[in-house]
Amino acid sequence: MPEVAIIGAGQTPYGDFPLKGVKELFAEAYQEALASVDKGLDPNLIQALFLGSLSAGNGFQLGQLAPLLAGHVGLPDIPAVRVENACASGGFALLTAVQAIASGAYDLVMAAGVEKMRDVSSVQSKYWLGISGDTEYERLAGSTFAGIYAAMARRYMEEYGLKKEHLALVAVKNHRNGALNPKAQFRREITLETALKGVEVAYPFNIWDCCSTTDGAAVVIICNAKKAKDFTNRPVKIIGWGAGSDYLAIHDRDSLTSLKAVKNAAQTAYQMAGIKPQDIDFAEVHDCFTIAEILAYADLGFCQEGQAHRLLEEGVTSLEGRLPVNASGGLKAKGHPIGATGIGMACEIFHQLRGEAERKERQIRNGRTALSHNVGGSGGSATVFIYQREGE
Amino acid sequence: MPEVAIIGAGQTPYGDFPLKGVKELFAEAYQEALASVDKGLDPNLIQALFLGSLSAGNGFQLGQLAPLLAGHVGLPDIPAVRVENACASGGFALLTAVQAIASGAYDLVMAAGVEKMRDVSSVQSKYWLGISGDTEYERLAGSTFAGIYAAMARRYMEEYGLKKEHLALVAVKNHRNGALNPKAQFRREITLETALKGVEVAYPFNIWDCCSTTDGAAVVIICNAKKAKDFTNRPVKIIGWGAGSDYLAIHDRDSLTSLKAVKNAAQTAYQMAGIKPQDIDFAEVHDCFTIAEILAYADLGFCQEGQAHRLLEEGVTSLEGRLPVNASGGLKAKGHPIGATGIGMACEIFHQLRGEAERKERQIRNGRTALSHNVGGSGGSATVFIYQREGE
Repeated sequence: MPEVAIIGAGQTPYGDFPLKGVKELFAEAYQEALASVDKGLDPNLIQALFLGSLSAGNGFQLGQLAPLLAGHVGLPDIPAVRVENACASGGFALLTAVQAIASGAYDLVMAAGVEKMRDVSSVQSKYWLGISGDTEYERLAGSTFAGIYAAMARRYMEEYGLKKEHLALVAVKNHRNGALNPKAQFRREITLETALKGVEVAYPFNIWDCCSTTDGAAVVIICNAKKAKDFTNRPVKIIGWGAGSDYLAIHDRDSLTSLKAVKNAAQTAYQMAGIKPQDIDFAEVHDCFTIAEILAYADLGFCQEGQAHRLLEEGVTSLEGRLPVNASGGLKAKGHPIGATGIGMACEIFHQLRGEAERKERQIRNGRTALSHNVGGSGGSATVFIYQREGE
Repeated sequence: MPEVAIIGAGQTPYGDFPLKGVKELFAEAYQEALASVDKGLDPNLIQALFLGSLSAGNGFQLGQLAPLLAGHVGLPDIPAVRVENACASGGFALLTAVQAIASGAYDLVMAAGVEKMRDVSSVQSKYWLGISGDTEYERLAGSTFAGIYAAMARRYMEEYGLKKEHLALVAVKNHRNGALNPKAQFRREITLETALKGVEVAYPFNIWDCCSTTDGAAVVIICNAKKAKDFTNRPVKIIGWGAGSDYLAIHDRDSLTSLKAVKNAAQTAYQMAGIKPQDIDFAEVHDCFTIAEILAYADLGFCQEGQAHRLLEEGVTSLEGRLPVNASGGLKAKGHPIGATGIGMACEIFHQLRGEAERKERQIRNGRTALSHNVGGSGGSATVFIYQREGE
């Protein structure tokens, strides 16, 4: 199987951009990705576009968004297709792009994500997100994702002694990281006291346990690793990838305190990469709610199930810890532009592995191997990617 | 690159099924596909699902439809993802599935398509389809696909002397074929006189020039060709594939009488297969409007541009002709369940190549190499696949 490498990556800031549509957001991320290719890249070498987007259709383009955006940046002829798995749309777009390169059908393609969530009313927003849960058993019964993840958090509290303070530690950590990231939507630290005192959403969650659905776009340019050196001396290889699914309705699942889709995706990715969880130097994980980051720790093998909140107590996953998680600020502070999220994680990792964080304070030291984790809905689907730079 | 083969294929009848939801339609096609695998297939060997669907969200599941359907047929763990490019969603689902096999990441996967178009009002239906054209320049200006394709037909009439009778010949041929296909929505022949006298839609189209958007599902099971003989002695190889895109808005395109997305897709597919258009024995093409089949003839290399309607005059593409096109009845008579259409074409070709047409009268004789052609919207995207059975 041909190896795959990232040679360029770009993303918009995440936030509320009433003056920019999806075309403008995509073009901005695309231009930044092109400019990041060290030795330059003739755009005509880009052979295909795989685009992650969920809400396409709410006031903008539903069908064929991918060719529309390719045409907008001057690449009307390349095969372009949209890939959707709710909040994991970006991860699955990257997956199909990586498999397209690995198949030998293409040498160089783009994986991208774009979303405009701030144009829609909060009722519409709930509609668009809600229908990524099970429609028959959850959405029509009035469930929202906050309620569904809250049920998982409650179960974790019962089984493993998780406290609200542990959830708050995720928020505090990620806001601290987000404060250093110029691309993050929320660039300010919060105290543990603040994190514990937010407006209630669904017990045990308050507003600080919930990420923001927002506007943004992200683009990564990937190629057959054999050709990577034509474009950069510092490619980042994707050495393993995996995907998984599960029942959408949580009542159908084996567990409420572990996501099988993630475990399967991680197992596949680790096996392909030939490494173990202990080899991961840092990670970007899908913290749509604070509990989601806690579930991720064990599902990705960073600890035993039920022990995840200990990592937070010990600061293992903070920026200075042994295994920094969500140096970007995560969905929690960086923001969650649905289809762009999984691609934005790859952007963050690409630049971190190359020592290119915008500010010295947020640059992870000596990272060589990293992981991204993108979850659809409440765990109905998931992707995991493992990245590695060359050298020691 | 590993070769890819189809080992099983199934589809529902196409039509108006108020008593069946997307889950039921998908399960029906899935069961038929499984049952078609000659030596039997343990469903647990299926490693992933690539699903084409456009209208997901109109009263059913928008987000994560693919894992929902995988779970419904007892495969909740397999990676499952939705792929969308309007009316070419099925073709692009097959493309991503084929590339997934060719990448070596999987040995055996499903490509599927499903759509429920008859549950939505005609206003909603226009909305869902209309937004697959360019939203800014076409939909918001009041264009519908009938109007857009009518503009292409008018241009073809001006440039090449096409008559309304030629359009009618497509409808007559495809209704004649559909009358023999138990899976077709419209199973009756029409006369040339009838075809010329339908209710006007958009000049030069009357109702007989337009396909029906409808309900249906289709599933194909594909695997690494090296393993195909474990499941059947009569696999059908996919020996070439290609995809293309173009500007969505037709005013941006080079031509109104040729679809560049199709030409590029066909060129890629022929090159990969190492064959020429003259080597194709029969084809399923995307006749959403009668002019679309006429455009396809030249874009696929079956004739010179502007000469397509001559093939109809000479009966070349009728069931008994040298190059039967749309033996299934095509979108025109078989029906057009958007996301299922591109997969349904692969089903038809799989069974035709194996000599398994349901009725002797509609079995194509001595076909060995066939082509399918699936177009998104008015030509914003397209896929072409070339299939071949073993033997002489």
